[in-house]
Amino acid sequence: ADIRAVPAKAGQCFACHGSDGLSKAPDAPNLAGQNEMYLVSALKAYRSGARVHEVMSLMAKNLSDAEIDQLAAYFSGIAITVKTP
Amino acid sequence: ADIRAVPAKAGQCFACHGSDGLSKAPDAPNLAGQNEMYLVSALKAYRSGARVHEVMSLMAKNLSDAEIDQLAAYFSGIAITVKTP
Repeated sequence: ADIRAVPAKAGQCFACHGSDGLSKAPDAPNLAGQNEMYLVSALKAYRSGARVHEVMSLMAKNLSDAEIDQLAAYFSGIAITVKTP
Repeated sequence: ADIRAVPAKAGQCFACHGSDGLSKAPDAPNLAGQNEMYLVSALKAYRSGARVHEVMSLMAKNLSDAEIDQLAAYFSGIAITVKTP
């Protein structure tokens, strides 16, 4: 399998969201396999202030569009499978 | 496995989020296995207007706290597994 390059700025996400994209903090969402367009719009909303969060607003403040695309691609690219009940 | 009761109001979520919790719309996030506290806070933010979205603001407007808890439990209860790269 291709060893997907980890975007330079992804490290700062791992503390709460996990390098596997599974939440490591009580109120942090999982990002693994998440919808890519949704992740891009969420990061841009935090960057613009349309969405406000004590941590995410800081994290997103200096991200470029390219960095946002790379981060969204990284996390959405983590394959998930669902076990329907 | 226990056939988890589908909350009455869950049906309105399925069009975009899927009954399996996997996104069925271009910019709708997956909800399967999502962090329960995050789902509760997201729905409450849409209900209060702290978060605004053309569809979600309407969907959340009349949800009670109990309905929000049931919906969050339903989607977060869908088991997901992650295939790390």
